[in-house]
Amino acid sequence: MAFQGKKLINDPNDVVTEFIEGLVETYPGLQYLDGFPEVKVVIRADALGTTYDKVAVISGGGSGHEPAHAGYVGEGMLTAAICGDVFASPSVDSILAGIRAVTGPMGCLLIVKNYTGDRLNFGLAAEQARSEGYKIETVIVGDDCALPPPRGIAGRRGLAGTVLVHKVAGAAAAAGLALADVASEAQRASEMVGTMGVALSVCTLPGQVTSDRLGPGKMELGLGIHGEAGAAVADLQPVDVVVSHVLSQILSLETNYVPITRGNRVVLMINGLGATPVMELMIAAGKIVPKLQLEFGLAVERVYTGSFMTSLDMAGFSISIMKADQTLLQRLDAPTKAPHWPVGSAGNRPPAKIPVPLPPSRSTKSEESLSRPLQLSEQGRILEAAIEAAVNAVIGMRDSLNDWDSKVGDGDCGSTMYRGATAILDDMKKYYPLNDAAETVNEIGSSVRRAMGGTSGVLYNIFCKAAYAKLKANSDSAVTAKQWAEALEAAIAAVSKYGGASAGYRTLLDALIPASAVLKERLTAGDDSCTSFLLSSEAASAGAESTKDMPAQAGRSSYVSAAILATVPDPGAMAAAAWYRAAALAVKAKYEKA
Amino acid sequence: MAFQGKKLINDPNDVVTEFIEGLVETYPGLQYLDGFPEVKVVIRADALGTTYDKVAVISGGGSGHEPAHAGYVGEGMLTAAICGDVFASPSVDSILAGIRAVTGPMGCLLIVKNYTGDRLNFGLAAEQARSEGYKIETVIVGDDCALPPPRGIAGRRGLAGTVLVHKVAGAAAAAGLALADVASEAQRASEMVGTMGVALSVCTLPGQVTSDRLGPGKMELGLGIHGEAGAAVADLQPVDVVVSHVLSQILSLETNYVPITRGNRVVLMINGLGATPVMELMIAAGKIVPKLQLEFGLAVERVYTGSFMTSLDMAGFSISIMKADQTLLQRLDAPTKAPHWPVGSAGNRPPAKIPVPLPPSRSTKSEESLSRPLQLSEQGRILEAAIEAAVNAVIGMRDSLNDWDSKVGDGDCGSTMYRGATAILDDMKKYYPLNDAAETVNEIGSSVRRAMGGTSGVLYNIFCKAAYAKLKANSDSAVTAKQWAEALEAAIAAVSKYGGASAGYRTLLDALIPASAVLKERLTAGDDSCTSFLLSSEAASAGAESTKDMPAQAGRSSYVSAAILATVPDPGAMAAAAWYRAAALAVKAKYEKA
Repeated sequence: MAFQGKKLINDPNDVVTEFIEGLVETYPGLQYLDGFPEVKVVIRADALGTTYDKVAVISGGGSGHEPAHAGYVGEGMLTAAICGDVFASPSVDSILAGIRAVTGPMGCLLIVKNYTGDRLNFGLAAEQARSEGYKIETVIVGDDCALPPPRGIAGRRGLAGTVLVHKVAGAAAAAGLALADVASEAQRASEMVGTMGVALSVCTLPGQVTSDRLGPGKMELGLGIHGEAGAAVADLQPVDVVVSHVLSQILSLETNYVPITRGNRVVLMINGLGATPVMELMIAAGKIVPKLQLEFGLAVERVYTGSFMTSLDMAGFSISIMKADQTLLQRLDAPTKAPHWPVGSAGNRPPAKIPVPLPPSRSTKSEESLSRPLQLSEQGRILEAAIEAAVNAVIGMRDSLNDWDSKVGDGDCGSTMYRGATAILDDMKKYYPLNDAAETVNEIGSSVRRAMGGTSGVLYNIFCKAAYAKLKANSDSAVTAKQWAEALEAAIAAVSKYGGASAGYRTLLDALIPASAVLKERLTAGDDSCTSFLLSSEAASAGAESTKDMPAQAGRSSYVSAAILATVPDPGAMAAAAWYRAAALAVKAKYEKA
Repeated sequence: MAFQGKKLINDPNDVVTEFIEGLVETYPGLQYLDGFPEVKVVIRADALGTTYDKVAVISGGGSGHEPAHAGYVGEGMLTAAICGDVFASPSVDSILAGIRAVTGPMGCLLIVKNYTGDRLNFGLAAEQARSEGYKIETVIVGDDCALPPPRGIAGRRGLAGTVLVHKVAGAAAAAGLALADVASEAQRASEMVGTMGVALSVCTLPGQVTSDRLGPGKMELGLGIHGEAGAAVADLQPVDVVVSHVLSQILSLETNYVPITRGNRVVLMINGLGATPVMELMIAAGKIVPKLQLEFGLAVERVYTGSFMTSLDMAGFSISIMKADQTLLQRLDAPTKAPHWPVGSAGNRPPAKIPVPLPPSRSTKSEESLSRPLQLSEQGRILEAAIEAAVNAVIGMRDSLNDWDSKVGDGDCGSTMYRGATAILDDMKKYYPLNDAAETVNEIGSSVRRAMGGTSGVLYNIFCKAAYAKLKANSDSAVTAKQWAEALEAAIAAVSKYGGASAGYRTLLDALIPASAVLKERLTAGDDSCTSFLLSSEAASAGAESTKDMPAQAGRSSYVSAAILATVPDPGAMAAAAWYRAAALAVKAKYEKA
């Protein structure tokens, strides 16, 4: 089946001019010559030929390789880019217009990828410009290493290595070198670089049908960037295997495509072909660097990973390796304003990894306190009674909670809460430092997280952590009722923030928010702690019951009809109200006994 | 049919750790915590918590959105990025490790995309870190504008707008602001931005089969970045129509998702979803900017176009619009070393286009001379005779050339050369300035280019242009034999360079190269011009004949067997030898007559 290739474009004939318009909207440092559709030339907004005092560096060719070449226009790289139609060489007039627009008395270097059409059109434009009095030099780049060394005219194709040549030439020009020297550095760079690609798909030209040349599970090796078939088709392999093959071919001593031998310094470019995610490019980079170092004995000085010279929407990448010396590294590292030259690859490499920092060691006080005290303080005894009552209330409600939850959720609320409650009971006996209320609350959070799991486990853990942080900040060891109230408020705020629920969302907050409000109100009004706590627990129960009338806003309940929802309260809210009320009653009982 | 998604990876379970390894190989400014596979944290190599004197800014979440978030780690943006598995929230321990690694006394801002898992895990880590004594603030970003305003907990999804929030927060932190102020700027930025996406394909998780949810010719509007279905499926439309719809939805006054009204200043982000070529993103940018300006009355201050927050290999893009003021623009423009923050979008916008430069006007001398002189000089008469003889020789060979070419090429060599020759004859009568040899050669090139077309037309044009430039540089009006010889040499060099052929490639150069060599040699030896020219023309003929024994290296001839090739000479070489010899004989005849 042949399908029209899917693209987010308008008229397929307008893709190049519309690309240029968008490019210039994006980058205020770029302009284009007002000669659409024939003349499609992007230039530096700050470099006009009549006044330009550096060597102009111009490249270009067929479009479809974006960001090449227009994305490399900018101080320190290209002065202009000449865009042909998709995969078609630009016209001589278009190239001439670019030369005339940016070339000053220092002259102009044309960097041309080795394709017949580009060579001829750039060549003719060069000769024409010379006859108009411009100083012009041309460097032709053919970095392809996929095919056996050519006998014929076609020669090696120009691929992603060309972008490195652009950078070297652009930096040399920016440094003020004369045309002959800029050309000679570019020429030398072009002879130092080799490239080979691997593809998972064939590119689709705008408005054309998608090719089914490459079936499922297949890849192409040694492809070009114009949809031409690769040198070989193979079964898709792990990228480890793929890059080993490609590296061997580029660095083959038989073909001797690049003058790179053991001990050399090199730079590496992993180039996405248009539809390759950064993740895959980086995975390749991570595998290639150690291979070059360990298997080929090369010092990898710089790594450029990204989509630099694409083939429309092709999936796959090419690898370029360039022999490097200090001058070349300096050119590659030199600053540029070209928007698509990669940032952050320059400079020395520190160790790739550092140890995970250790959690702060508990203070001596905490160390000691993280065990059940031999003797409980009065507050410790009250806390223990409250916790015990609270978890027993939850344990006793297991079946009811499961039952309610089976109607509005996934039916495991009671079981989940039961797991948390029994874990608290167990852990409390073993090591809760009950005389330190803050630390005890913190440990409850840890017990719950270990035992409960899921969203409710995390939410209760957040609840405890936030309460702990507040208690810790507010109090030393004895905690006042006001401090408990503030801790409750902070815990609710954290659950609301991270859980995303507010009052009326039919969650546990519909029990706790009214409780917190009443607690604060009664304490402020001057009621004693026990009374305030008890009154607030009644508000919790009433709040939980009121969830029956609330629409569901979270989880599976949101798919349940209002009629069914009205028959049951939110189990999470009921559980929260239950443990809160049980704790309040236990505290009251302890105080009365005391 | 369900196919395994094609990816250049190794074990699907290792994609995130291998991505991080490659990222750190690429960018020497980044490091990672040595805690794989549980802890996957990328940090700035130059910011260790114990000594870090700025507010740390941390973000993260599930992987699969590369370059987010790790690609935004760097001075001026994120201090650390916490990577979960693909589309899975990172663990609390992993987040805590990141916080501990980079947080100093100024504290830490966590920027979290609004997903339940991220909110809970970052929330719990925040509470834990607070209890360890760290100052922590959290900002949750939900910029999605695809769905109707939410009633529930889930709320608006965090999408590409988060990257703009990263930048604002990172710049505020780099400026030395206190935690509360950094958090408040980030919070404000998060409330100013709205995002909506459109997709042409569904992303494929590593190791999973490719979904066929989205058929040919269909697109999804309002999608998320985790493979969830979009809000609507529609027939694929021109991108003009698509962006209009998306802009209306983001800027809808009904939903009021972003507080943007006519006259506001905004920044724009066009975000590729992983497999979208730069060309398509730029086309969208070029359409969106004028729409925002003209239809919505907004001032577009900055445009960021690229792949910033992807969804694995999804094709499509999202559009984010953020209300901007001077402070926010300053934060966005502030320098950063984060490798994937876009370069070149800052600053004022000059006019998008400038006029195509005019070709240099011909000098007065040339203007006058570009018509057939009323009276020919002696050299003019000789030149006219030579040209006439040369083109007549080519005209007379039409059938032979076609015949030879039908055996080794496409059979039109004679016809093509005939067209060029007759054009020269016609144009010479009309306007060749025959008394000026250089200008005449230049005009021959123009006649040939107009009439012949194709590769041979361009090559002969290059030949003439190069000869012209040399003659022009060397001589004033009368041209010496030595100057002609030098012009021939330059012309051959240009054809060889741009055409890619050398001696022995079975092309016209196999006639011209021997001719040039003999001409130079004879003149250097002291022979007179006529004799030298004649002797060199014999070399041309011999050279052309010798092409029979040459293998073909260019064009269609390279597919022809050696047996057939041996029966015919190269027609291009024969034509060149013919016109060269005819010219030589004509010059001799003229001199003898004179």
